[in-house]
Amino acid sequence: MESLEKLFDPKSIAVIGASNQQGSVGFSMMKNLIGSGFRGTVYPVNPKRKSVLGIHCYTSILDVPSNIDLAIVATPAKIVPAIVKQCVEANTKSLIVVSSGFSEIGPEGAKLERELARILKGTGIRMLGPNCLGYIRPDKKINASFAIRNAMPGKMALISQSGALCSGILDWAQKKRVGFKYFISIGSMMDINFSDLIEFLQQDKEVESIAMYMESIKDADKFLKAAKRFSKRRPIIVAKSGRFEESAKAAISHTGSMAGNDEVFEAAFLRAGIVRIANIQDLLGAAEALAKQDLPKGKRVAVLTNAGGPGVMASDAIMRNMLSIAGLSRATMKSLEKEMPLHWSRGNPVDLLGDAGPELYDKALGILLKDKGIDGVVVILSPQAISKPLEVAKAVVKRAEKKRKPVLACWLGETFVEAGRKYLRENGIPCYRSPEEAVRAFSYMNAYREILGKLEQDNFPRPKEMQPDTKKIRAKINQYREKGRLVMTEIDSKKVLEEYGIPVNETLLARNAREAVKRARQIGFPVVLKVVSDEITHKSDAGGVALGLVKEREVEDSFKRITRNAKRAFPKARILGVNVQQMIPVGKAELILGKKTDSIFGPVIIFGSGGITTEILGDKTLELPPINKSLAGRMIRKTKISKLFLGPTARVKANVKELEDILVRFSHFAADFPEIEEVDVNPLIVSKGKFFAVDARIILSAR
Amino acid sequence: MESLEKLFDPKSIAVIGASNQQGSVGFSMMKNLIGSGFRGTVYPVNPKRKSVLGIHCYTSILDVPSNIDLAIVATPAKIVPAIVKQCVEANTKSLIVVSSGFSEIGPEGAKLERELARILKGTGIRMLGPNCLGYIRPDKKINASFAIRNAMPGKMALISQSGALCSGILDWAQKKRVGFKYFISIGSMMDINFSDLIEFLQQDKEVESIAMYMESIKDADKFLKAAKRFSKRRPIIVAKSGRFEESAKAAISHTGSMAGNDEVFEAAFLRAGIVRIANIQDLLGAAEALAKQDLPKGKRVAVLTNAGGPGVMASDAIMRNMLSIAGLSRATMKSLEKEMPLHWSRGNPVDLLGDAGPELYDKALGILLKDKGIDGVVVILSPQAISKPLEVAKAVVKRAEKKRKPVLACWLGETFVEAGRKYLRENGIPCYRSPEEAVRAFSYMNAYREILGKLEQDNFPRPKEMQPDTKKIRAKINQYREKGRLVMTEIDSKKVLEEYGIPVNETLLARNAREAVKRARQIGFPVVLKVVSDEITHKSDAGGVALGLVKEREVEDSFKRITRNAKRAFPKARILGVNVQQMIPVGKAELILGKKTDSIFGPVIIFGSGGITTEILGDKTLELPPINKSLAGRMIRKTKISKLFLGPTARVKANVKELEDILVRFSHFAADFPEIEEVDVNPLIVSKGKFFAVDARIILSAR
Repeated sequence: MESLEKLFDPKSIAVIGASNQQGSVGFSMMKNLIGSGFRGTVYPVNPKRKSVLGIHCYTSILDVPSNIDLAIVATPAKIVPAIVKQCVEANTKSLIVVSSGFSEIGPEGAKLERELARILKGTGIRMLGPNCLGYIRPDKKINASFAIRNAMPGKMALISQSGALCSGILDWAQKKRVGFKYFISIGSMMDINFSDLIEFLQQDKEVESIAMYMESIKDADKFLKAAKRFSKRRPIIVAKSGRFEESAKAAISHTGSMAGNDEVFEAAFLRAGIVRIANIQDLLGAAEALAKQDLPKGKRVAVLTNAGGPGVMASDAIMRNMLSIAGLSRATMKSLEKEMPLHWSRGNPVDLLGDAGPELYDKALGILLKDKGIDGVVVILSPQAISKPLEVAKAVVKRAEKKRKPVLACWLGETFVEAGRKYLRENGIPCYRSPEEAVRAFSYMNAYREILGKLEQDNFPRPKEMQPDTKKIRAKINQYREKGRLVMTEIDSKKVLEEYGIPVNETLLARNAREAVKRARQIGFPVVLKVVSDEITHKSDAGGVALGLVKEREVEDSFKRITRNAKRAFPKARILGVNVQQMIPVGKAELILGKKTDSIFGPVIIFGSGGITTEILGDKTLELPPINKSLAGRMIRKTKISKLFLGPTARVKANVKELEDILVRFSHFAADFPEIEEVDVNPLIVSKGKFFAVDARIILSAR
Repeated sequence: MESLEKLFDPKSIAVIGASNQQGSVGFSMMKNLIGSGFRGTVYPVNPKRKSVLGIHCYTSILDVPSNIDLAIVATPAKIVPAIVKQCVEANTKSLIVVSSGFSEIGPEGAKLERELARILKGTGIRMLGPNCLGYIRPDKKINASFAIRNAMPGKMALISQSGALCSGILDWAQKKRVGFKYFISIGSMMDINFSDLIEFLQQDKEVESIAMYMESIKDADKFLKAAKRFSKRRPIIVAKSGRFEESAKAAISHTGSMAGNDEVFEAAFLRAGIVRIANIQDLLGAAEALAKQDLPKGKRVAVLTNAGGPGVMASDAIMRNMLSIAGLSRATMKSLEKEMPLHWSRGNPVDLLGDAGPELYDKALGILLKDKGIDGVVVILSPQAISKPLEVAKAVVKRAEKKRKPVLACWLGETFVEAGRKYLRENGIPCYRSPEEAVRAFSYMNAYREILGKLEQDNFPRPKEMQPDTKKIRAKINQYREKGRLVMTEIDSKKVLEEYGIPVNETLLARNAREAVKRARQIGFPVVLKVVSDEITHKSDAGGVALGLVKEREVEDSFKRITRNAKRAFPKARILGVNVQQMIPVGKAELILGKKTDSIFGPVIIFGSGGITTEILGDKTLELPPINKSLAGRMIRKTKISKLFLGPTARVKANVKELEDILVRFSHFAADFPEIEEVDVNPLIVSKGKFFAVDARIILSAR
């Protein structure tokens, strides 16, 4: 942490690779540092130069006559390790490597990166980069970047994983008059990564929000902890790309093929209190709204406008973003009737009509902000000949000041409304270009409120009644592994699930037809037979299932038929026999419960619509295990299928409390066994109100 | 049409209500007309003034010493009828009423509107408005509007139903350097509506595209015909709001509650060849791309960028918009390897790295445009110190000129790239602010291509084998009506469907237990019993259904049980008996087929996931009947449930050709009987590859 403090508040900076050549990184870096009013000292280092920008240039960092808090390395990648070694010798406190040519270019560069890591190990020196733009800290007048534009001072911290994007964001920010406390290009994250920066920013109470552009992370656990701690008090907003980059791969289990890595990120963000925004252009607007305005207490939005069309568009956006169009209270209606023009809209959106001036906006906004049924107001001005964009802006700012409800603005158009927009932005009212954008910003504020409400509940007691014999399960796993088998049989899978209290229908193995009859008698008719073979994944497709057998004779015949079918479909499969199972009367709701292992976040559980429509409907929800009952309830409610047994559309009787318990127990199971790669409970059916795992499969990791 | 020609190309214009008072409509209108270089004559009319803007002012239009092609009325609503009467007397050729205070303010205004309509009836004079801004026609230097901004000349026609929005759009357009041939504020459409304008624009071959902002329409049939004719050659782009305005109301049938009016618009737009855009901000960008660029031949997009992050964002957007990331051919890879810098991305997105200059962009774009596997290119420039936004823009324009593939640009940032952006726009390459927007524009181009492909197939022969006895059906309908009954029994509903060749399972009414046994014997076991009562809508919920009865005794017992259940659940219901039906083995796919009657478009058919999950899943598709087999196939493929019997995920055998036939026949049925308000065939199940309507209900309109 000390090194990070030096990095972001250095008194002395060395620029290694400083240059006089216009357009070079070494030149831009020097120019930004020197030009911006930094009160410390900058030392250019370059063996080929006597001076850079008229400043004495040193041959090596070892020659610099002062201790260096921050060394910025802007040399070709190949000589970076040697340079960094010198920085260590020179007792440099922190490092930025802006050079590219490391892991992003392939194995050769990765090797250089490993060398760098080795040199820095144990030194306590922290490094930003490589392959980054550097950072800007306007309050200390430090522009330690080669960005083409400077940042204005403000209270937002921005962290971007794309250096290229930084310049674009700075350009937008200037236009929108958004300022920053820190503007950081994080680069390849060889050393300093998102969690380090979040922890560092946690200590700076002046930072009001963090906005991030992210492609991936390297430190899931630390990241989630740091983010959660920060987001309890201040918002973190992230634009994550790569949403479709790594599509879900074909996998043995349904669960494996049901969710890609990006959906796991989505679940993780929610758990860490991070607000994810839909696209990069919303990043600044969302961060601005969240930092400058009080959070709404709910999702009921009032729209104040001087034109019908934009009001309708705002209403559309409110519905599309799952917010609600506030109803106006009787008192509000009465006050508005008194103050508004004759033909006002008499409802929400409140349309003041085209000739509305600042007084009318002021009165209407005042009335709306008083209404307890309204959680926030979107004020729209559509330019008309007699509109006074700046005067209305002033009225809105003044009126919104005292109220602890969010007020967002949308001044439509460009030049004509520019001054009004600028006034609003500079006075704490975020102003957007379209009703849609303003409403989206409100929806991010509301998302943060909802997330905050849920963060409190985050504790995960192990259910007391759940006492799985984990030793027994581990022994079973080892047995499989020793034989080189990775797919557990249905019977073994169900036994493991039963240890965790997941109800299953009784299932017994039968090796031949006579044994099948015996098992059927044991279980009681009607029964189901299913072929057992490691090599056959989809038993029904292979004709390997017989349902609803009520007589011994039927069991005998079916045994022969389904084993014959399976052999025909998979001539090379080794068929171990059939499973004889209690026939659960067909339920109307078929569910799936599963686990998969994500390459970044580890175990993930999935719940949703099961049966043969699993992949087709894609009706599912993800969580990081373990979870508690409240999260389990949220998972259930998020799926469409849950409406079959919850709420006004319920048609199927089901004990939802029991389902919550099942999810909680399953989540502990998922968390307890990293050696299990995937689990598929499909279908989990509801029959006469109770839940049963009717089929199950556990897949071990290859390791 | 003649009147419309005078309206949009007048030689003489009277402005009634012309005024010297700054900010008034009469002043703005005069100022816009006089200031903009119009070569005809403008006559201000106002009894209270001697002159307006220094021009002689007439007391009444009857005093104007010349024939008036266009009279613009900008007086208070109350005197508009009297004014218009004078215009008729003065033999005015066309009218614009900009005044508000008509139907939009309620019954009082609606009355005025009816009066206006009466005055104009039979005169041949067409009227734009009321409650509109007027129009602008830059090529003739006519600004007959009170908009605060003028339009630049161009080849797009814009029609906006929101006057307030016009100024905002004009402001955006100026910024984006988008020009217009016509810019029309359509207002309340008392007379001239969308179809009239589209027909008028059809004749102007200079118009390259129509962009519309729409809230609703009044003339569904004419609109669809006019739009379809236009869109066969030139694109129509619409931003329609009110998407969530009229939510689907609670209705007796599933079908009725499944689709709101906006979804019917969506289906109608597709049939008319109209491209609908997601939000108003895309309107100009989409229209620009469609007008200025050649249509892509497919949906494979290549991305050319100088930065990784924006490339990833473009890829995300490509996937999100259902386009595809083009693979690079071997020849392309070879050429790029030769020309590109060492560490280029070696794939699509083609990342030229941060120091890419105009030459590199030029070479790479040339290579990509040659690749037959690429249907269009999105070129991104992310500003870096050494970037040359204007030079790269010039290179892109030059290179793109000769190729008949779309090239869209995204120059990230603001001031730094402004000149490059302007150059691109002025030279036929639409340029956007974010990769997301550029990709969305491509997706609209692709949507238009796909729509065009389908427009060709639009013919609807009645299937020859279908020979319904429509007289018999009409007689049955009348019977019901005479008794004041609007809900047909299941048996009658199925009989009607059978006339149209929709397969149903055999269903017979039984009034008592003994009759039920007799019917069951007739049909053959196993059978299903369902209670019959006009008052009971959801029979299963009332315990009024018994499935899988295999013995006479079971039928007898079940009759008693389910009628008792039904009476208990609905004590006031009149129970007419039970339906005895052939039991179709439970299918894995439950579908719904339905008709509803839309207030604007009339009959609509719906197909999708049925059974008890109908409303929960919302997996459905709409069409306007009648349809042909090709449209039927499209409807089927659009649903998720179809993947159960189509394509690689198919698990259920089904004759899809037969399903197409059923949809086509059902669509003719839906079109043939306007007296039928709603139809519900739910579920339509597939069993052993064949389809059966297992339950059905026809609801007559109250009329």
